[in-house]
Amino acid sequence: MAETRVALVGGGVIGGGWAGRLVETGHDVVVFDPDPAAAKRLEEMLANAERAWARLTLAPRRRGRVTFVESLAEAVRDADVVQESVPEDEALKRRLLAEIDAAAPADALICSSTSGLLPSRLQDGLRHPERLVVGHPFNPVYLLPLVEVVGGERTSASSVERACAFYASLGMTPLHVRHEIDGFVADRLLEALWREALWLVHDGVATTAEIDDAIRYGPGLRWAQMGTFLTYRIAGGEAGMRHFMAQFGPALAWPWTKLTDVPELTDAFLDRLAAQSDEQAAGRSVAELERLRDDNLVAILHALRGERFAAGAVLAEHERSLFDEAHARGEPPDPSQPLALHDAVVRPEWVDYNGHMTEARYADVLGNASDAFLRHVGFDAAYLEAGHSFYTVESHIRYLHDVKAGEPLTTATHVLGGDEKRVHLFHTLAHGSTGTLLATGEHLMLHVDTEAGRTCPMLPPVAERVAAAALAHDDLPVPDGAGRRVGEPR
Amino acid sequence: MAETRVALVGGGVIGGGWAGRLVETGHDVVVFDPDPAAAKRLEEMLANAERAWARLTLAPRRRGRVTFVESLAEAVRDADVVQESVPEDEALKRRLLAEIDAAAPADALICSSTSGLLPSRLQDGLRHPERLVVGHPFNPVYLLPLVEVVGGERTSASSVERACAFYASLGMTPLHVRHEIDGFVADRLLEALWREALWLVHDGVATTAEIDDAIRYGPGLRWAQMGTFLTYRIAGGEAGMRHFMAQFGPALAWPWTKLTDVPELTDAFLDRLAAQSDEQAAGRSVAELERLRDDNLVAILHALRGERFAAGAVLAEHERSLFDEAHARGEPPDPSQPLALHDAVVRPEWVDYNGHMTEARYADVLGNASDAFLRHVGFDAAYLEAGHSFYTVESHIRYLHDVKAGEPLTTATHVLGGDEKRVHLFHTLAHGSTGTLLATGEHLMLHVDTEAGRTCPMLPPVAERVAAAALAHDDLPVPDGAGRRVGEPR
Repeated sequence: MAETRVALVGGGVIGGGWAGRLVETGHDVVVFDPDPAAAKRLEEMLANAERAWARLTLAPRRRGRVTFVESLAEAVRDADVVQESVPEDEALKRRLLAEIDAAAPADALICSSTSGLLPSRLQDGLRHPERLVVGHPFNPVYLLPLVEVVGGERTSASSVERACAFYASLGMTPLHVRHEIDGFVADRLLEALWREALWLVHDGVATTAEIDDAIRYGPGLRWAQMGTFLTYRIAGGEAGMRHFMAQFGPALAWPWTKLTDVPELTDAFLDRLAAQSDEQAAGRSVAELERLRDDNLVAILHALRGERFAAGAVLAEHERSLFDEAHARGEPPDPSQPLALHDAVVRPEWVDYNGHMTEARYADVLGNASDAFLRHVGFDAAYLEAGHSFYTVESHIRYLHDVKAGEPLTTATHVLGGDEKRVHLFHTLAHGSTGTLLATGEHLMLHVDTEAGRTCPMLPPVAERVAAAALAHDDLPVPDGAGRRVGEPR
Repeated sequence: MAETRVALVGGGVIGGGWAGRLVETGHDVVVFDPDPAAAKRLEEMLANAERAWARLTLAPRRRGRVTFVESLAEAVRDADVVQESVPEDEALKRRLLAEIDAAAPADALICSSTSGLLPSRLQDGLRHPERLVVGHPFNPVYLLPLVEVVGGERTSASSVERACAFYASLGMTPLHVRHEIDGFVADRLLEALWREALWLVHDGVATTAEIDDAIRYGPGLRWAQMGTFLTYRIAGGEAGMRHFMAQFGPALAWPWTKLTDVPELTDAFLDRLAAQSDEQAAGRSVAELERLRDDNLVAILHALRGERFAAGAVLAEHERSLFDEAHARGEPPDPSQPLALHDAVVRPEWVDYNGHMTEARYADVLGNASDAFLRHVGFDAAYLEAGHSFYTVESHIRYLHDVKAGEPLTTATHVLGGDEKRVHLFHTLAHGSTGTLLATGEHLMLHVDTEAGRTCPMLPPVAERVAAAALAHDDLPVPDGAGRRVGEPR
């Protein structure tokens, strides 16, 4: 597939999104768009796609090139696949598809990005109607994997297969919509929700921002990973979809919306729903699905916390308040012993292909133990904002034992030394319940003036507390593994 | 808020979810549910919540306790907040709310979890109707932050405020629904989408699994972070929501669904939509919003990749094919020089509160360089599956320079030594365009029989390639920083 020559007819939000995905997956693309503003908009879309993919994957990739051409015929002349993404105007699309059909090689696949026009109508009058397929993507095309693939009455099965294989090679998920209907599947769902949202604004019930919040802090997080039926199956419990429908089906007929025409819940319909839902669950119990859902939700909340956005911003704020409260409670540990300041649990996303916590996560937990020590000696947000911080300059980690997802971790911190500019720590990382030693970490941190970018003496009260902590550990024996070179014999 | 005493009336999926959230945020809760099966189901919900929160946050927390009691009166007697979560039956809810009203302290807040019944009707007949508020959460309550807060005609403003503050203290996002309507905001949207989904199944257009895929691989990923209006604003471009409506509004009236009653797009309505959308955008350009959206989407895709689920499984599969293709292309680097085998870009979620890449991410990139070296010498999935792997046992990292999000990274690997069981590597990590040295990493890896859990000699072709790589670097000078102890003077 790497050498597939692709022509794009139309370079707007959708055509430009296709260009971005194609370039980032190594395809050279030829673009035709008669709009004089198209080239600039396309450049922006390509820059967005490049930026997104640089973050998306570290896998080795070749990037393709984009060539603008002056005519539709020139664009499609040598194409293996032509993707049409012009405005949703049936007459315009039919005219351009006929031009593509006439100018492209006879074996080229022709795909339309239409979000709802029927392929049977679009292929009507083409010389080679069997090769016309709808491939309906979602904005931003370079990031969202979904593409609805729909054939018309005269589309060949091999054209549908070819389109699905091509889209899959671009890292997409082709969804073959087997019954040709206006709006296909996704846009029917989108429009139903959007129509209701417009009524809510129209009737003054809620603002656009409130409606977006009602989605993104709640149901949207479920839709992102399981959709609607699997989510409801879980809510129905072990009794399955039929039980859920018995509980919640009647509410469908309540006069909640302007639009109350609902399918009659006949036995035959309920049987079909239940059977499809069973097949979808593939033998997984509700308890299993709950854990799957929860792991996905936690992962998404963590992802959004990284962006400090939507539900992730809420989590970050809540965690901040937990740290503040813990600080306010503050019962100090015995200063003469290694300090147990940080515990953790191995998260499922921390494990590698061996099923063990990855190297970097050992470093992460040990780094968090260093942070906990700094908080312990009074380093806080105000100290940081006033222009001083600690930077780790050197660390040595021994990986002594593996540990699996879900297992508890505990740390203890031995202060090997500390002067006015330096903190030298030695952490042990142990299994939280068995006590097995998992790793040791030796870390040297320097105190810096963040504006000047230079080391400088610590300020009170941090300076005194570091000195006191180091003094309190002065009589402890040097721990096993401190002061080692990599590869040094024991 | 930490000492708020909470009573739960009803301990099913919603009541149990409340119990989980409350316990995980440090609240003792008293539960009344007359169903003999309630206690077991609640235990399961609490176990789910505990598991999820152990993954969700490392912040210091206290966990609360749950007490089951035998009567409603006993449950609510000393409560500051009572949360009612019994089945959606107006008569049942009214009866129990009256009992709660009679038995709870006069100043207790009474909240109903109803997903759509009107608070004005629920408070009718209460002794203290002013304290009845709807607090409608979403399953799983212990993870999803959204809670719709709705007051009835007789609810006091202070009760609404109190409910919002209480829910916020639980790490939730209270959405004050200012106009009391059946179904509130979120369930109207949910039902609209679900009703359309049922029609699609009913008419045989798609299966439940196909419909879920149409959501979770596409629009669901947008809904999880921006909702619907902000997403559409971006699609409309700099001209804003009015332009979007001009382009896509007419499609609303197309006969795409069974339910085509739509608000008339009058000028006044379009003005309201456009103004609310402008306010929501808060001065951010479409280009800014695009970047924000893309960063969120990338983060969510990464999160789901970690779970190998939905869109994340698609990404993982695509990356696997990219690695396979790169391997098939394979042009080997100059063996006599340090090997440039791994590049990366600093992702936005890799930076800390200083704005710099965190310690653990240096370890991560250096670990990936080690992995790249192992792939280079022929360690692959088949080798691993046959029962052999490499474990890092010791590493030493020097952090020499900070680096910010979006900056390119490059690595070079010097093979310091290697025998039949050991690989000793020294990586340099440099800025990809300026060449500034950012870090060095020295790593010792052992070859292990994964089943026996013991070191063992490497197998062909890895053994020969490691030996050859070490030999080829034998004449290179020992790099600066190799063989150091932490804190050793230069």
